[in-house]
Amino acid sequence: MISKRNIYLKMKTLKEARDIVFNSFPLAGVLGSETIPVPDAVGRVLSEPVTAKLSSPNFHAAAMDGIAVRAKSTFGASETKPKELIIGKDAFYINTGHVIPEGLNAVIMIENINVVEKNRIEIEAPAFPWQYIRKMGEDIVATELLFPHNHVITPYCVGALLSGGIFSVSVRKKPKVLIIPTGSELVDWRTYPVENLKPGQVLESNSFLLGKLIESCGATYVRNEIVIDDHEKIKNSVHNAVNGDYNLVFTVGGSSAGSEDHSKSVIKELGEVLIHGVTIMPGKPVIIGSIKNKPVFGIPGYPVSAIVAFEQFAAPLLRMMLGVPEKMRQEILVEPTRKITSKLGLEEFVRVKLGKVGDRIVATQLPRGAGSITTITEADGIIRIPNHVEGINDNEPVHAELLRPLSSVNNTVVIVGSHDNTLDVLADEIKGKYSDVTISSSHVGSMGGLMAIKRGACHVAGSHLLDEKDGSYNISYIKKYLPGRKIKLVNLVFRDQGLIVSPGNPKQIKGIEDLVREDIALINRQTGAGTRILLDYKLKELGIDSKSVKGYENEEFTHMSVAVAVLSGTVDVGLGIYAAAKALNLDFIPVVTEEYDLVIPEEYFESKNIRILLETINSQNFKKRVKALGGYSTEKTGKIIL
Amino acid sequence: MISKRNIYLKMKTLKEARDIVFNSFPLAGVLGSETIPVPDAVGRVLSEPVTAKLSSPNFHAAAMDGIAVRAKSTFGASETKPKELIIGKDAFYINTGHVIPEGLNAVIMIENINVVEKNRIEIEAPAFPWQYIRKMGEDIVATELLFPHNHVITPYCVGALLSGGIFSVSVRKKPKVLIIPTGSELVDWRTYPVENLKPGQVLESNSFLLGKLIESCGATYVRNEIVIDDHEKIKNSVHNAVNGDYNLVFTVGGSSAGSEDHSKSVIKELGEVLIHGVTIMPGKPVIIGSIKNKPVFGIPGYPVSAIVAFEQFAAPLLRMMLGVPEKMRQEILVEPTRKITSKLGLEEFVRVKLGKVGDRIVATQLPRGAGSITTITEADGIIRIPNHVEGINDNEPVHAELLRPLSSVNNTVVIVGSHDNTLDVLADEIKGKYSDVTISSSHVGSMGGLMAIKRGACHVAGSHLLDEKDGSYNISYIKKYLPGRKIKLVNLVFRDQGLIVSPGNPKQIKGIEDLVREDIALINRQTGAGTRILLDYKLKELGIDSKSVKGYENEEFTHMSVAVAVLSGTVDVGLGIYAAAKALNLDFIPVVTEEYDLVIPEEYFESKNIRILLETINSQNFKKRVKALGGYSTEKTGKIIL
Repeated sequence: MISKRNIYLKMKTLKEARDIVFNSFPLAGVLGSETIPVPDAVGRVLSEPVTAKLSSPNFHAAAMDGIAVRAKSTFGASETKPKELIIGKDAFYINTGHVIPEGLNAVIMIENINVVEKNRIEIEAPAFPWQYIRKMGEDIVATELLFPHNHVITPYCVGALLSGGIFSVSVRKKPKVLIIPTGSELVDWRTYPVENLKPGQVLESNSFLLGKLIESCGATYVRNEIVIDDHEKIKNSVHNAVNGDYNLVFTVGGSSAGSEDHSKSVIKELGEVLIHGVTIMPGKPVIIGSIKNKPVFGIPGYPVSAIVAFEQFAAPLLRMMLGVPEKMRQEILVEPTRKITSKLGLEEFVRVKLGKVGDRIVATQLPRGAGSITTITEADGIIRIPNHVEGINDNEPVHAELLRPLSSVNNTVVIVGSHDNTLDVLADEIKGKYSDVTISSSHVGSMGGLMAIKRGACHVAGSHLLDEKDGSYNISYIKKYLPGRKIKLVNLVFRDQGLIVSPGNPKQIKGIEDLVREDIALINRQTGAGTRILLDYKLKELGIDSKSVKGYENEEFTHMSVAVAVLSGTVDVGLGIYAAAKALNLDFIPVVTEEYDLVIPEEYFESKNIRILLETINSQNFKKRVKALGGYSTEKTGKIIL
Repeated sequence: MISKRNIYLKMKTLKEARDIVFNSFPLAGVLGSETIPVPDAVGRVLSEPVTAKLSSPNFHAAAMDGIAVRAKSTFGASETKPKELIIGKDAFYINTGHVIPEGLNAVIMIENINVVEKNRIEIEAPAFPWQYIRKMGEDIVATELLFPHNHVITPYCVGALLSGGIFSVSVRKKPKVLIIPTGSELVDWRTYPVENLKPGQVLESNSFLLGKLIESCGATYVRNEIVIDDHEKIKNSVHNAVNGDYNLVFTVGGSSAGSEDHSKSVIKELGEVLIHGVTIMPGKPVIIGSIKNKPVFGIPGYPVSAIVAFEQFAAPLLRMMLGVPEKMRQEILVEPTRKITSKLGLEEFVRVKLGKVGDRIVATQLPRGAGSITTITEADGIIRIPNHVEGINDNEPVHAELLRPLSSVNNTVVIVGSHDNTLDVLADEIKGKYSDVTISSSHVGSMGGLMAIKRGACHVAGSHLLDEKDGSYNISYIKKYLPGRKIKLVNLVFRDQGLIVSPGNPKQIKGIEDLVREDIALINRQTGAGTRILLDYKLKELGIDSKSVKGYENEEFTHMSVAVAVLSGTVDVGLGIYAAAKALNLDFIPVVTEEYDLVIPEEYFESKNIRILLETINSQNFKKRVKALGGYSTEKTGKIIL
């Protein structure tokens, strides 16, 4: 079995692989050209230089509203000795853009003439020759080069082309890509009823994701039907594709070293494999080959791997065919709030959330999983860690490529800490009213939030830390862990915490005391999470040793993940909020109502965005939506506790 | 007559005007929404928050190719004491993405197993629970918020939405703008034969320019037929427009204070004028009014005024309707190579060319004329000079908004100096082969080029400065004006300079000696231009006093402008290159063959882009194209003279 698997024997670095790929194919001139009307050409690339056919203006034109004169006839005019001009003889009313009458060579602005009577005016200053006249060809001279070939047409260019008498242009044809999704597990959401989805079946989405990325490069795509994991079937599809009029062919999925990975052998049989495996993460298993002089890609099936492979190899190839340079993202300096580790020998594309906290832009790492598309949809930037670097220390300035405009990063409220569903409602409410303000929340537990405040890594921390001694929330922790920091504490919600169990509560769990039962497996929250502290408190109250609780050591990071664990049948019970149970139609046994607050350093409290945040929390809309979730009380919502 | 004109009595600053306009209309919710398939939604704005319907993965899935096991069954395995597992009983081969069989909870990578025989394998390390398993919901948990409303869908989002079981989304309808071009001088290039164009007639291009800008904001446009300068006709069109389903109405042209400017009075009669005149340049005459609660714009007719008015007012309005923030351009620090003056009381949008020369980004000002669309198509950036600032000194760092990516600015060869048509050929040849390299050339005459080298404002200067003493070119000037600088001098071309006259040479001009004739008017080049120095030399040779040459004091800045002056009949003759005469079908009387060289400081001579430049100059293609222009000799082209 192992012999059939493709092991990456000759992995290339990104640079090596790009050099090979970019120099292995005929690219310039491969597309051909087509002639289209200028207004349809925005975003297209000129395949020929364009020279003007008309001058603009095409005649000497008035540049101001006023009177046209012979400059000579105005010489000698002054404030003390105004000069009189006769309309229709020495002077002619003229509007901006109109033709200067034959023999005249200056315009005097309307503001600078005194109307004496209908046909007589006075001027108090002479005009110099060609004053306020747009001379023929001032903007564009016929026969001059307007734009070189390989120029990308913008809306501005449309104005210049039409003014220069150019109504159609020759542009490169769009490159055409065939995408062949492969995998027996895949189903087509357009035809397959989603309610029939069985475990192991996956909605095919990569072809659409890649198709839209292809379009964003100025190319087009055709999606092949899904091809099952069958060598001959995949080979057939690739064979047909390279014989069609496609400039690029993708097989998607099946490029890792698994037994069902046919991309490599198919390319090998039909042509030549140039690249199998690149020392990048995500994107490592990418395969790039040449069949009939056409690039054929084996794109990895994990979405973020697919994206990195596309952006590092396919996008530049498409743009080279079009004759335009690779798109570079804006880079800025950021500071990771925690050490980011990285494997030696791999160039890592680390997705990060960004936000301006104080006077630095802080970067919070998102999960690394290449299979999680949300690690890139939630990202504001990408930190690339080179092969020879083992990681980046916290607070070490490092370049990040921006996925969103810098203005948006600068206008982001960074919330770190405990997870609560109402933070999503808050983000949505704010985005609805203030489209330029973004709420970015990372879930690291209540203690993680306080530590983030301490490190200057966030504006706000969400926290529900119970003080076992007096039943108070958060205040004693703030005093202990943020000594000397001036902190404001604002209540977000009160919420029900309880045991989340399968529908119908099949194991008849009644409370915390049942967690010691042999037939019950728990899913716990991570160390530092307020919910875990709550569980520990409750176990202690009941005198239960955590070692006697099955699954105590298994951790999840959010309420929703706990609920999912229960839903999937992996475990029987977890402690979490009512909203999580309700969302997945699970049963819920209330244990306690707890306080969930926002911890805000005083220096940010008066800032514009925090004021917007507090205003939103206090709005009736927000409270209404929170109540609709169930398991929340908003009686003290927005109250300043500290 | 003057009473009928609209004088800007109450000009607002840009900030005041924007505040008024952005707060005068119902914007949120004005568009309504529509439901469209997810793959069609890229670039569209969510009108509702989207929550996931499916979890992703929707089952516990293998994250690696390998074997699925019960973690417990692997405990105790070590290098010295490998553990044996039976395939089909303890261990099951599994591929990335496939379902973990019921009861198993870990995956061991294929690389870490030793196949003993077909059904028996050994492992040398234990697996911990959930190792290499993508748990159900690891990426997306059903019911979780995927994207808030007002979120703009990207290709990445398409992947996340489809993975979350969302196949269609509710997005804002696109705002719809009606554009009404007004002006009796305008003709429609789509129906009017361009060869019939008479002086005073203008091809209408602004509606298409604006239409494409509208589309770039995510909106759509409809173009009204051209309306002549007739108050009732314009009023009718605007009346119909505001009663239609348009969200915004533009009249274009006729918004300056001219007698034919009806926009203001039309808006006043049908609704309310909010803004007439803003202290910006270009864009000052913009009119913004409200009719039936809809924004109606009087967009100035000069294209750059139209662009600034659109980008400062209309674009943000459209984006507010859509629920997305204003687009901000990337800003960088640049240094103007010459002082930029600015009028107090006006905020100026100065268009500049940019390039990285040495370790700074230098800005060269383009002409200010709002009527010249090429001042923005050629621009790399815009420097905004506030109302209260009178100008910017040379070498004073100042912010510029980028119109092109920074990577393109950093990859630009800045050529300043004398104008020659072969520089356009050079630019086009380079762009064809090296799409990421840009040639930016500014025409300030040969002496201007040497001065630019001196100030560190360019990489290359184009120069043809004749030394009257020995008939040599450039060398003595370099020694005099760039003492101590290490300079390379490369020949670009030899070219014919001569007298450009009307076809058929109606005034029978035979040579320089005829310039003293009473019936002949000259157009001269600016001080510092090599061609002017050549003329002065020739006049001196003939003992002619420049004062006796009619038109000697009238200056143009390029050969083409000189040719245009002759073509338009404004003057009878000008000294210039053969290529300029030929381009406009004028007659040409040769005077001299001169040397045109490129002056390159040694520090740039070995740089990548200058090497590309020299390589291109030496190419057969370049020489062939230059020869085809006529009036050039390429015998010494590419030769290093100094």
